[in-house]
Order: sequence, then structure tokens, then C-alpha cells
Amino acid sequence: MKGIGTEMKGIGTYKTGERVDLFMLIKQATKGITTTGSPFMTLILQDKTGDIEAKLWDAKEEHEKMFQPASIVRVGGDVHDYRGRNQLRIKSIRPAKPDEPIQISDLVPSAEKSKEELYEELSPYIFEITNPNIQRITRYLLKQHREAFLVYPAATKNHHDYVSGLLDHVVSMLRLGKAIAELYPSLNKDLLYAGIILHDVGKVVELSGPVGTVYTPAGNLLGHITIMVNEIAMAAKELGIEGEEVVLLQHMVLSHHGKEEWGSPKRPMLKEAEILHYIDNIDAKMNMLNRALSKAEPGEFTERLFPLDNRQFYKPTFE
Amino acid sequence: MKGIGTEMKGIGTYKTGERVDLFMLIKQATKGITTTGSPFMTLILQDKTGDIEAKLWDAKEEHEKMFQPASIVRVGGDVHDYRGRNQLRIKSIRPAKPDEPIQISDLVPSAEKSKEELYEELSPYIFEITNPNIQRITRYLLKQHREAFLVYPAATKNHHDYVSGLLDHVVSMLRLGKAIAELYPSLNKDLLYAGIILHDVGKVVELSGPVGTVYTPAGNLLGHITIMVNEIAMAAKELGIEGEEVVLLQHMVLSHHGKEEWGSPKRPMLKEAEILHYIDNIDAKMNMLNRALSKAEPGEFTERLFPLDNRQFYKPTFE
Amino acid sequence: MKGIGTEMKGIGTYKTGERVDLFMLIKQATKGITTTGSPFMTLILQDKTGDIEAKLWDAKEEHEKMFQPASIVRVGGDVHDYRGRNQLRIKSIRPAKPDEPIQISDLVPSAEKSKEELYEELSPYIFEITNPNIQRITRYLLKQHREAFLVYPAATKNHHDYVSGLLDHVVSMLRLGKAIAELYPSLNKDLLYAGIILHDVGKVVELSGPVGTVYTPAGNLLGHITIMVNEIAMAAKELGIEGEEVVLLQHMVLSHHGKEEWGSPKRPMLKEAEILHYIDNIDAKMNMLNRALSKAEPGEFTERLFPLDNRQFYKPTFE
Amino acid sequence: MKGIGTEMKGIGTYKTGERVDLFMLIKQATKGITTTGSPFMTLILQDKTGDIEAKLWDAKEEHEKMFQPASIVRVGGDVHDYRGRNQLRIKSIRPAKPDEPIQISDLVPSAEKSKEELYEELSPYIFEITNPNIQRITRYLLKQHREAFLVYPAATKNHHDYVSGLLDHVVSMLRLGKAIAELYPSLNKDLLYAGIILHDVGKVVELSGPVGTVYTPAGNLLGHITIMVNEIAMAAKELGIEGEEVVLLQHMVLSHHGKEEWGSPKRPMLKEAEILHYIDNIDAKMNMLNRALSKAEPGEFTERLFPLDNRQFYKPTFE
Amino acid sequence: MKGIGTEMKGIGTYKTGERVDLFMLIKQATKGITTTGSPFMTLILQDKTGDIEAKLWDAKEEHEKMFQPASIVRVGGDVHDYRGRNQLRIKSIRPAKPDEPIQISDLVPSAEKSKEELYEELSPYIFEITNPNIQRITRYLLKQHREAFLVYPAATKNHHDYVSGLLDHVVSMLRLGKAIAELYPSLNKDLLYAGIILHDVGKVVELSGPVGTVYTPAGNLLGHITIMVNEIAMAAKELGIEGEEVVLLQHMVLSHHGKEEWGSPKRPMLKEAEILHYIDNIDAKMNMLNRALSKAEPGEFTERLFPLDNRQFYKPTFE
Amino acid sequence: MKGIGTEMKGIGTYKTGERVDLFMLIKQATKGITTTGSPFMTLILQDKTGDIEAKLWDAKEEHEKMFQPASIVRVGGDVHDYRGRNQLRIKSIRPAKPDEPIQISDLVPSAEKSKEELYEELSPYIFEITNPNIQRITRYLLKQHREAFLVYPAATKNHHDYVSGLLDHVVSMLRLGKAIAELYPSLNKDLLYAGIILHDVGKVVELSGPVGTVYTPAGNLLGHITIMVNEIAMAAKELGIEGEEVVLLQHMVLSHHGKEEWGSPKRPMLKEAEILHYIDNIDAKMNMLNRALSKAEPGEFTERLFPLDNRQFYKPTFE
Repeated sequence: MKGIGTEMKGIGTYKTGERVDLFMLIKQATKGITTTGSPFMTLILQDKTGDIEAKLWDAKEEHEKMFQPASIVRVGGDVHDYRGRNQLRIKSIRPAKPDEPIQISDLVPSAEKSKEELYEELSPYIFEITNPNIQRITRYLLKQHREAFLVYPAATKNHHDYVSGLLDHVVSMLRLGKAIAELYPSLNKDLLYAGIILHDVGKVVELSGPVGTVYTPAGNLLGHITIMVNEIAMAAKELGIEGEEVVLLQHMVLSHHGKEEWGSPKRPMLKEAEILHYIDNIDAKMNMLNRALSKAEPGEFTERLFPLDNRQFYKPTFE
Repeated sequence: MKGIGTEMKGIGTYKTGERVDLFMLIKQATKGITTTGSPFMTLILQDKTGDIEAKLWDAKEEHEKMFQPASIVRVGGDVHDYRGRNQLRIKSIRPAKPDEPIQISDLVPSAEKSKEELYEELSPYIFEITNPNIQRITRYLLKQHREAFLVYPAATKNHHDYVSGLLDHVVSMLRLGKAIAELYPSLNKDLLYAGIILHDVGKVVELSGPVGTVYTPAGNLLGHITIMVNEIAMAAKELGIEGEEVVLLQHMVLSHHGKEEWGSPKRPMLKEAEILHYIDNIDAKMNMLNRALSKAEPGEFTERLFPLDNRQFYKPTFE
Repeated sequence: MKGIGTEMKGIGTYKTGERVDLFMLIKQATKGITTTGSPFMTLILQDKTGDIEAKLWDAKEEHEKMFQPASIVRVGGDVHDYRGRNQLRIKSIRPAKPDEPIQISDLVPSAEKSKEELYEELSPYIFEITNPNIQRITRYLLKQHREAFLVYPAATKNHHDYVSGLLDHVVSMLRLGKAIAELYPSLNKDLLYAGIILHDVGKVVELSGPVGTVYTPAGNLLGHITIMVNEIAMAAKELGIEGEEVVLLQHMVLSHHGKEEWGSPKRPMLKEAEILHYIDNIDAKMNMLNRALSKAEPGEFTERLFPLDNRQFYKPTFE
Repeated sequence: MKGIGTEMKGIGTYKTGERVDLFMLIKQATKGITTTGSPFMTLILQDKTGDIEAKLWDAKEEHEKMFQPASIVRVGGDVHDYRGRNQLRIKSIRPAKPDEPIQISDLVPSAEKSKEELYEELSPYIFEITNPNIQRITRYLLKQHREAFLVYPAATKNHHDYVSGLLDHVVSMLRLGKAIAELYPSLNKDLLYAGIILHDVGKVVELSGPVGTVYTPAGNLLGHITIMVNEIAMAAKELGIEGEEVVLLQHMVLSHHGKEEWGSPKRPMLKEAEILHYIDNIDAKMNMLNRALSKAEPGEFTERLFPLDNRQFYKPTFE
Repeated sequence: MKGIGTEMKGIGTYKTGERVDLFMLIKQATKGITTTGSPFMTLILQDKTGDIEAKLWDAKEEHEKMFQPASIVRVGGDVHDYRGRNQLRIKSIRPAKPDEPIQISDLVPSAEKSKEELYEELSPYIFEITNPNIQRITRYLLKQHREAFLVYPAATKNHHDYVSGLLDHVVSMLRLGKAIAELYPSLNKDLLYAGIILHDVGKVVELSGPVGTVYTPAGNLLGHITIMVNEIAMAAKELGIEGEEVVLLQHMVLSHHGKEEWGSPKRPMLKEAEILHYIDNIDAKMNMLNRALSKAEPGEFTERLFPLDNRQFYKPTFE
Repeated sequence: MKGIGTEMKGIGTYKTGERVDLFMLIKQATKGITTTGSPFMTLILQDKTGDIEAKLWDAKEEHEKMFQPASIVRVGGDVHDYRGRNQLRIKSIRPAKPDEPIQISDLVPSAEKSKEELYEELSPYIFEITNPNIQRITRYLLKQHREAFLVYPAATKNHHDYVSGLLDHVVSMLRLGKAIAELYPSLNKDLLYAGIILHDVGKVVELSGPVGTVYTPAGNLLGHITIMVNEIAMAAKELGIEGEEVVLLQHMVLSHHGKEEWGSPKRPMLKEAEILHYIDNIDAKMNMLNRALSKAEPGEFTERLFPLDNRQFYKPTFE
């Protein structure tokens, strides 16, 4: 993820006591009332380098409408420590003006490579798929969802939760899939590559978009797995393809969470489906662990990581 | 289920010591070898009234081909007791001749009502669905799978596992659904009736057929729930229907097993889906319990019922 | 539950910015201290239409005694929004005077029908019980606990948690039980009706009363199931009744939570006990879902419902 | 348990190849048919020293009636090894004659001490109970069930599954309870001793009797815990005792299995109830482990012990 | 634990409204900021009799360095009630001076007996171990860790979480172990006593020290069980001891948590290991229950006890 | 695994009806008795290509001693089908003579590459470990256990359960570890390679040997994980190495089963430990799946695979 460890001076790099004057994106906005009855606002502000909780103590009625999520603001204030985390006391805040040279894409983290570069790396994998039915279905569905597929995150939080995070995740999985397929040549590369590419494409329906991402009603009611299994069926019908490849490709997507409790109504029953499940896990966990460990000091543990069974990970003192 | 408790003289009504001479259907056939090395065959033979394990001790090479599952035979022999269950020692056995007035449908248990009667009872429910999108999708899919839907069982064993068992189960559920919808008028009848009708239609793809039923590969790899959710998507596309009804109908089917561990990747999130799950359970359990209790004596427990958490049920001594 | 959706102007119908002047019941009262050290009180106030959190910022020593739970007050103040929920800033508050025409029963939600109407609907079911032993035990126990049974809630929260909620729940279950018994005539109505009527009567010992309901020590240490199973034993002894009916009736109550983990030391082993468990569930869930969905907008999800595995339910945009 | 390790020449001490001529009790009898169609009987025969599976190959029709469970027979035959366990090939067998000096009590294992000795050891504990309500209830119930309590086993298998096993278990638990109460003087001895004495008395209703023990219908439908909790309630009523002691004593019995999944609808909520659960466990496990280890050789593991999570235990080579 | 129930006038004995002037130890210190932006500190202060949350409202920059955990302060202020618990409003606070006659050991709770008395009670148990290999390993390891073993707590919270808590726990377990071994003479006392003594010695590496106890990195990464199993292996090597005793002693320690989920990679497979697990549990639970019940009033329940499955325990009204 | 799919004519390649005359190794031998009382033996016979159940119907007393597990025999007989699996009816059988050119290593399956080739592939990985402490410990332990490490299986069944299976598994994991470390350069190769090499070395103590492998008592009581963690501690002491590397290396081994329930008392808390767990799983599962799928026909499912949650895997009809 770009931003982590880069040199740019952003909100993620300020320390307690420093003064801030930055364009930032409002990620979340909540109205509050102090115990003595005066109104205030809590904003989560972000740029590419991180986010911070900010308090606007002297909130007016009009502020609520002015400072909505997904809008850009120019903010001045002081960073101080609140219960071990940085907090920003806002001194000045105003909406960005239309002619100011700043846009949302400047303020949200994104994959390290551009979406064009990533897609260029993905393309050859499609053409390595030799089974024509599998290749055609894969191409058809990628084409159909291309625009969203290039910019969506892979999740609302935890891993690859940034612009183009989905594509970033898929390309990383393809690299790993290729390495594994070379070591275990009995694996069918066609199924494995198509499975990797398609496994999460349903997220472009399940989630609302690349920024301020939430679940859609259809996402909640069906889930990205069911959505994508449906799309494979419809693609096959559209392309006039029948036969085992369709069912097996559906099974790859259907089973990739590995267990019923994790949302796959069928456990993997293909060698390639079993491996897809592992590749997905390894790549997601490496992403989470790298991020969490980048914030920890050598000789210390990370904070508890909820999606990793609430474990804390240790950062060794040697390299 | 027809046959239970009826007066017809069939294999289910013979007692130890009686001599049998009947047409029966071979449900299962296995070759064995005695501990002293001589070959024999174990056949499961059935007619409408039940089934029995039968031993053909003097099996010849040609017998294996002659006595295949799903073929009809004329069998003579003696019933004796083997570990508390009836067993048939075969004295004579031959394939039924083409001109003999017996067919498979005479030998397999089936719903008490004919499939035509059942379907006639089902039809009005479709026309009570007032939402046109829901009604059209339901009719389209019923029409498409009508032939199989009329004769398939609802399962390979446990409940409604007989010819037209699926239809029998659905009609019984509709009756119960209607009663519940009258008591809880906030329930949306359109969703409920359509959900009941469609929830298990995917079984006509998941299972192999009405007799000697096993799982198909697609059934194993995808399951009837996913299969039917796909079909709803394709029906909607075919009919040019868009909108919430499609997703909600898919959700009804998707969630009807109630929990991830039971094969529903989403738990019910519609009031009607929650109720559908209960109706399905009540009807299946009443079917299993009635069958098991019909074999138990008053004052005794049934055998352990695996799909009911291995419980035994008590049959009271009073009525 | 009366009050939901009715036209009466009560606390549940006020919006942010409105001024309130109402009699209300104190449901809960807690003393606090602001971060700057001044004392205040947090009250939960209710009337038939709902409840609201209220802050009394200038609390005096004497207020604590004056404003105790289960007492009636006259309150004036302003409604404002606090973290997405309504809150009342109290401007004036005083205990209700003895001669003011207001009593607790005017301020707590209750079943839609009166307890008399409900009991009248219940009575005929008792007389439909044809087995004299079962009928006599049922009548004896109802008579013994009649007074409390007419006014107790079915639970402290979640479902039927209002005055006469227990009776309301039981009558609703009887209606459903009757419908099911008609569809599945093999069910023994005597056991089913008696089981429905008695299953939760132990709550009149387990819980403290109809208002401000909490668990009693005996309720915590034994639970309503054990309490009622005991009472059946004692009733039978008192009435000189012996025989299977006593044990079966005890088993109906004992097993109605369905599983050990849910507090039934024996799972259902009678067909009627299995069905009682389902009827209890359906009626409780319909009550919870109707209430939660009445607060949600079409096209949105309810809040998370803890007793329904923390699920959110969707309210369709069409009817 | 008497018999284990004693010098008496009984069936438990014979080795492969030896000839047997003994009175034994038929514990179980099953009719079979060989793969070649000839009838035989499998008997489980026992005396105080153990049991053995026996085959009567030339079974006649009349044998089935002659050799019923719980009858005594005189048997001659040869011991041989069958799949690692001893088996008896019966050469001669006949029912014991009325005038032969042998009775069932001579053939079933029993506690090492006589029931009189055990009861004499138990009595003083009752009189150490100083709370009159607790003492009276305990005495009343022991008196009521004295006859059965003196001879019943504590279980049908696994631990203390022999004549007077229940009393043996209770006395052993009292010794342990006394030692613990001395080390932790805050424990209330009245509750602890009464809880130990009464905790399993419900078994005299749950189980069928001291020999050939099976579950009764009431035992299956209610369980010994519920049965005993009922009896405490009725005893208290009979004796005119009211008050907390009754509920606490019921809770002691109710919670002694420790968890809902293990049949206690309430977990222990009294310090003494928690300790009762441990004492019950320790004594039952010591009984099972001593028995299993007495059959194992030093340096080897016991067979898998199902009630101990299927573990195998190691017998050290040193003492 | 000394302090509970003693007469000494300490922080645990003050009531709301009283004025305090005491030496206390800072157990925890957190910086905060009020909703209006002014800094304050929250301190947890303790002496032998208990602890209290204290607020220092007018915190200065230098206070943070001055008032660090594990330092002693002289504090004046008022006790008031905050959400049902006592809180101290600090009026005056200063670090203790080097020449003031107060030290940490005066302010932390500790075992009722001195560590010397406890150790004197422990010693004879070592000499009752007759197996020379087991005795030598036990003595070697005790000697090696003696200093820490005498002062460490048995845990950071929940039970025996005070200075010398570990030794207190072990001695109490030895008393119980002796009583059990006398009742069940088949138990090997050598294994049992050595297992009790060594089972938690690994805590002197797992935890940071007797005061302000936290987990060390090695403690987190390996755990006290693995640490001690290693030490036994190394001790045996050092002492030139080989043979079964070493493995069995390791197994005693390895399995004492009883189950894999609780941190024992092997379940007990020795009778003595099974009993060790129970003794550890009984003693830890008695410690927790005595402490919790000492704070509850007769006729009431304790607060929820997290390490006892979140149960509440009842304190009877009679003794 | 050598043998699967090779051309050699061995027992794994015979079909029903064929006559066999081969040297084979007795893997297992059990004595039986037919239902008519005559003794027989059941042998499991193996060579490099598979194994078969064989019946010796006319067993004599002396046969039991002659035909012991792990001895070589010359066997003649006929292959026939028994319940869907091949069985051998023995016509002639005799122990191999000392001068016959056949040895155990000719008859047991083994890794495809020789142990020398495998070890040569392993060596460079050790020298890629740049941290001297980690490298020295790894080399020390490999050297100490080299002989056994070269020939032991990785398990008694399921995966890599053949001569040199452990080494084969480790080398395959190293290849995969290298590929992953290249894709995720933040991984510490020293920890990862050392963890892979050492993770299962404890099996050389846990298991009895390369042929006829069973668990040793120490293996049962401690397990290979604990054994190896001990050895790392002792190696470090021997080599005079202190510091974090020792603890981290122990943690790698300790946590490699991933969860407490699977025998790791600590879950992975190092990024490299998490990845080690995945690499171990992928390699073990590929081994099991390749073996199971090699026996299945295209278009069919494998048999149920117990260590893969009892799943069946599908073998596609296309490549």
C-alpha cells in the first residue's frame, strides 16, 4: 500500500505537539454533546498517509451540513495525545474551494503500483489459460466488470482496503499461484488462474465503491460469493458454453472461503480450490501483518489483530 | 407416505417364519464372500410397503449382471430374524419378464396423493402471489422443471425420500405457510409462498432421479441451494425482470438452511426467510417422526434418529 | 404490543427540538459525576409509547431519594440528539402527587388486548384437553398462579417484555398450536395445549413482577423450567394423580428450550415437545421481528438483534 | 470394587486354552445366524471376577427361552483368543437348579465393603449437618429411598457400575469432601455433605435396578437430576420447610454436572456446588482409572477410555 | 491473602465522604484530556487493603514524569461515589521522600503467611519424595529459581495475584494433594508432589516480577508450561539423570492445564497428572471465590467472574 | 512417493482374477476364528507398489510365530474382490530365506529421490541462513539427528508416511518457502528456513522408526513439538548461545500446528511462524491429494479423506 513508509509529509507522520495545516478528506463525521450540554463534532480525517480523530469543540448548527463524509476540507490545529493515540484539536476548518488543486484521489491510500501497471501484469495470466471455455468466461466477466474491478478495494477494512486494493490482491495472488503451480505441476493452471482472477470480482457488487466503502443491500443479502457464482452461470449461458468447466469454475469461487462457517456453502473439493483458499489467506495475511508490523517497534508486539484471531505479533530486534 | 399403515400385503408386513413369493425391486446389490471363501450376494429388495435385506447364498458369476439395482425380480424365500431385524433367505429369484404386469412405479413408495392431485393443490398458491415479478419468476421456473419436480424425492433418505416426495413436502409446507401467514398478517405472502415453492427445486439437478437416487457431481460441487439461486438469476434475466424482488427471492432460497454450518452462506435476514426455515424444519421433522413412531410400540422409544441429533422419541401409552 | 404505531402523543413520538411536558415512569436511575466533578443523574423515563434517556444536570443530594425507579414524575425539558439517539435535557422535574390522575399501569406498555380478553381466549383450550389427568393438572396450576400469570411479562427484555406479555405469548402460541395440530393430526392435542399453557408459568417465580422486572434469587438458582417441573410434580401429588401423563407433562416443560446449551437438560423426546419448541420460537421471533422492523425504514436493515444471533433484518421497499 | 485383584478363581482369571466349569450369570443374550444360515447364540456371562463373551454354536429354538438375561447357568467350555480378547466356546450349558447353592448376589461384582459397613460410615455425616432444615430434608429423602440407595449402582457402565456402587461412590465422596472442607474452612459443610449425599439419589428412579441395569422411561425423559430436585421440593413441602435452604439444596443437585452440555441447566452458583462438581469428578475418575490401570502392564497404555475424552493412560514402570 | 478482612485502616476501608491522607503505590497511570480540552491524570492507587481510582484534575506537564507506576506517593483527597464504585478526588499529591519510613512491600497485598513460613511448610514435601531422580530434579530447579519463586505472584490477575502468591498457591495445593493421596493410596506421591511444586515455576520467567506484573516477551512466545518443560530437560541433563522419570515429570507440567484449548498440548495421560489438574483448579477457584464472596452481602450475588465462565455466585443468608 | 504410477509389476498393480507370486513384507498380522470355530490369519502384505489384505484360511499354531509383522515372505495366491477392494486368498506362503536377494528396503515405498539427493538439495538452505546463532543451532541439531532424519517418515499415515518421507517433506517445503520469501521480501529467511528444517525433527523421537512406525511412549506423553523445543534449548546451552534467536526459533517450532486444538500451545506470533504453518499444510495436503486422486477415475470423487475433514475430492474429466 502506497504511503506506508514513504517520505511525504502527511497526517500519518505528525507527532504530538506539532501544528497541522493540511487538506484532508472527511472519512466519518459524528455530532456530539459534552457532559455540560454544548455541541461538538468528531471527525475522522485522512490523507494518503493515515487518518486521525479530530475534535471541533465549538460546533455550530451549519457545521453539520458543511462537513459531511467524503468531502475535502482545509484544516489547521494541534496534535496531542489522547489515551495513547494521536488526536487533533481543530483550530480552523473550511471546505476546499472548487479551484483548489486537490481531489479525493490525492487523499486516499492506494496500491503502490498504478491500476494500469497492475492490470498489465494480470493480462498475460489470462492468456496462459489454455482451456478455451475457462478462458472465455474469465475474459467475458473481467470485461464486463473492468471499470469497477480496477478501482475497488478488496474489503472495507483489514486487508487491501484501499483504492485498487482488489486488483492489487489478485495480482499478488497470481504471482504466488504461479510459483506454487511450478512446484506442484499436477495443479491445473487454467482452473487456478481463473479462480484467482474471479474469486472476489463479486465484491464490485457487494461493496458500494472505492471510497467510503460500505456493503450494499444485495451485498448483505447474497454476498460476493453467490453473486459471482451467478455471474459465471449467466456468462456461460450468454457465451453458449456448457460442460464441466462451468461447474468447476463456479465451485472454485463458491468454496474459496474454505468452510461453511466462513461463508462457503461447499468446502473445496478440487485440489485447485483447496490451493486457491490457501493463496487467498497467505496474501491477505501478509498484507495485514506487514501493515501492523510497520507500526510496531522492534522488540514489541503489534496491537491485537481482530481478523487474525485477535493475536498480537512480535517484531524481532534483529533483521 | 403411502404404504405406511395400509392394508396391502407387501414385504413390510411379513413376519419371521413366513414364506414370501413377490415381485420386488432391487434397491441395492453387493457381492460378498463368506469367511470360508464362497461367493454370495446381499440384495436390498423393496416394494411399496417397505424393504428387506436378502441373502443369495449360492451366487454364480452371472448373477451379478442379472441382479442389478433398479431392476425388478420375482423372489421366493423365507423370512427369519437376524439381529432383531427381518432378513430374507432367497430360495428362488429371477428377473421379471417384459410381459409381466409389473413396473417400477408399482414397487416404490410414493406420496399418499397422486402427483396430479398434489399439483392441483399447489397451483392456487401461485395465483395468490400478487407481486407480478415474484409470480412470473415462480411460474417460469416451475414450468421449466415441471416434469422432474412432479416425481423427484425431497432427499435420498431421512424425509420425503420417495417418488413425488419433493412435491408432497412443498404442498404440506404451503398449507402450514398459509396457516402461519393468517396468524401473523405482517408476513408477506408473496415472498413466503414463492420461497416455499422454489426452495428445494434445485434438488432436481442435485439428485439423479426419482428412483435409486444419488447425488450428481454438480449436486456435490454446488448444492441445490446455489443451483436454484443461479436459476432465479437466469430466469429474471430471461424475463427482463430487475429489482429488489429478484434479490429477495434469491435470499429466501439462499438462507433457508438457516445457518452457515447447515449450508446457507447467509442466515435469514428477511422475516419471511426466517419463517421459511421453520416451516421446512417442522414439515421434515413431522415426516420423520411419524414414520419412526409408526414402527415403535406404545411405551417404547424409537430407534436413534440420526438427522434429529441421534435422539430417540417416546411413544406414549395413551392417545 | 399496544403503543407501537398508535396515535397517542407519548415520549416515543417526540422528535429532536421539541419541548416535552409529560408524566413518566422512572425505569432506571443512576447517579454520575461530570469530568469536572459536579454531580448529575441519568434517568431512563418511559410511558406506554417508549422510553428516553434523560439528564438532570443540576442534581442535588435529595434528588437521589426523590427520583427512585418505579416512581412517577412530571417532567419538562427539551429533546435533542445524542449519538444518533434521542436524549432529554430536563428543565423541570417533580414527583407526581397522590391526587393526580395517573398510575403505573398508564405508563407501561402492555398487550394489545386486555388480560381479561386474553384469558377468555385461553380458557376453551383447557377444556379441549380430553385427558382428565392432563386437564386437571393444567387447571390446578393455572388456578394457583392465576393472578401473576395474568400480568407478568414473558421476559425481562427481547420479546413479550411487557405487562401481560406472558399471557399474550401463550395465547398466540395456542392459536399457532391449533393450526399445526389440524395440519398434522397425529399430534396429541392434550399434551400440546397443556405444554403451551404451562411451559413458561415458572416465570412467575423466576421474575420479580410485571414492572421493573428482574430475576429473583430462586429464578437465578433454579430457573423457570425447573421451578415448573417441580410444580407439576407437586400438583400431581396433591391431586393424587399418578402415571405417565405426569412425566410426559414434565418432559414437555423440561425440554422446551430444545437443547442443553439453551437450558433444557433433556432434548425433546416427544413429537409434541419438539413442536412446542418450534411454536415457542416462531412466536417469540415474530414478536421481536415485528417490533424491530416497525422502527426501520423500507430499504434499510434493522439494528443488530442480539437474541437473533446478532443478525440485522431487511425491510423490503415493496409490500 | 471387590474382585479386581482378588485371589478367587473366577471367569476373569482364566487364560486362553483353559477349560471352564462354572456357575455364571447371563448378562446379555443375542440370537444370531451364521453366514451359512445356522442359528447360534452369543451370551455375555459374568461372575464376580469379570465377564466373557460366549458362543453357543448349536443353538436350538428352546435355548432362546431357557437362557435369558439375569438367569444363572452352569457352563462348561474352552477359553480361546478372539481378536485379542478371551472368548468362551460353550460345550455344555444348563440352567441352575433351584436347590443349587448359588444366587445372583454371588455372581455380580459389588463394592469392597458391605452395604451395611458403608451405610454405617455415611450416617455420622448426616449428624454433622447442623442446619436443621438441611438435615431433616436429607434424612427424610434417605429414609424414603433407603432400600434402593443401598444396592443401586452409580451408573450403567464406566464408574461404580456394580451393586452398591452408588453408596460406595457417595461414601468415598464424603471422605474427600471432609478433607477439602477442613482445608478450606469457609465452605459450608451442611450444604456440601447434604449435596454429596443427595446428588445422585435420583438414580434409584432413573435406573432399573442393581442388576442388568438399564434406563427407565422416566429416567430417559427427566433424568436423575430433575427427579431429585423434584423430590427435594416435595420433601420440603411434606416437612413444612420453607426458605432459602430448600432452593440452595435443589441448586446443589441441579448444578452438579457443572455445565449445560453435561445436563445441568444451571452452572454452579454456590461455592459448595462448584466443589461438589469437582469431588464427583475426582472420585468417578479415580474409580475408572484404577480399574483401567489394573488391566495394563507397566510401561504400557490403557485402552482408550471413552468417558475420559477417549484418552489412554500410561502406567509407569516404577512405583 | 492478607489484608482482606483485617482491621488495618487502609484505602480499602474508606467510605464515600471520608477524607484520605495516606501513602499509596501507583499501580497504573494514564493521562487524559477533558471534553473541554484540559489535561488530567487517572491513577490507580493501592495499599495492602485494596485499590482506588483517583483523578488529578489539574495535571501539569511535569506530573506525568513525577507520577509513574510503581512509585510511592503521599496523597490527600476526598472519597466519593462514581457509578457505584469509590473514586478519589485528589487534593494534594507528592512523591514519597527517600527518608520516609515506607516501602513498596508495605503497600502491596501479600500472602497471609510470610514467604519464610510458607517455604518451611513446603520443604518436608520435597523430602517425602522417595524416588531419587524425581527428588533431585525438583530440588535442583527449586534451588535455581528459589529467589523469584519466593516472591512471584501466581498470575497477573484473577487468583493468587499478589506477592508470594505463587508460593502460597503451591503450598495450599500440597496440603490438598496430601489429603487426596491419603484417600486414594494408588496415587504416586512422588510424581504428585513434584508436579505440584514445579507446575508453575515457569511463571518466574513468563512474568516480569512480583509488582506491576506483566508478561515478558519470552512468556508470551513460549508460555510458562513450555519454559518449565525445557528446564526439566536441562536439569536432568545437568544432573546426568535419564529414564522415564524425566519424561513423566515433564508430562505432569505439560498437561496440567488439562486441555489443548487451555494451553496443554497433551491432555493428562497419567493418573497423577489428571489429579494435579483438579488440585490446581480447586485451589485457584477457592481463592477467587473467597475473594469475590468477601465483597458480596448475604442474600446477594457476586459480580460476574470472568475466569469462572462469567458466572455470578450467591452468598447464602445463613451460615 | 516412488511407486505411484511407476511401471514396476507389484501388488498395487494386480487386478481381480490374477494370480500372484511375490516377495512381500508383512505389515500387520492378526489371528482370527471363523464363525464356525476354525482359526485363520489376516495379513496385510506390502511391497513398494502398495498393500493388500490377505487371508490364510488354514492357519496352524506355528503360523502365528512364523508370520510376524516386519518379516518378509514369499506368497502365492489369487486376487479377488471383497467389498469393492482387492483381497488375496493365500495358496502358499513361506518366510524368505536368508540367502534370497530381497530386503525390507526393497519392499517399502520411499521418496522418489534418494535420501542422499534430498539431503544435497537441503544443504544449501542451511548456508543461506545468515544469522550465525540460528545457523549454528540448526546445523547442530541436524548433525545430532542426521541418521534418523534421513530415513524417518513424516507420519505414521496420511502424508509422507514412507521411508525418508520426513526429509522429502522438508525439502519440498524449503522449495515452497523460498518461492514465498521471494514474493514477500519482508519475510526473514533465516527464521523461515530454520523453522522449516527443524519443525518436525522431533518426530525422530516421537516415532519408533522408518518401518512399521508407531508412537513411542515419550512421543505420546510429550509430542514431537515439545521434544524439539527442548532440544533447541539444550542445543543453545551447549553452544553457549543466548538471546532472542533461541526463543524465536523455539516459537517457530512450538506454534507450527497453528492452533491450541491442533497441539500448538501458542498460536503463531511471528510472521514467519504464520507462513511456516501454511507451508506445512500446503505441502502435506498436496501429498495427500495427489495420492488420493491418482487412484480415482476422471469424473469421479476420491474416497473420503479423513485428515481433510472427511472430504471427497473431484477429479475433472479434462486436463
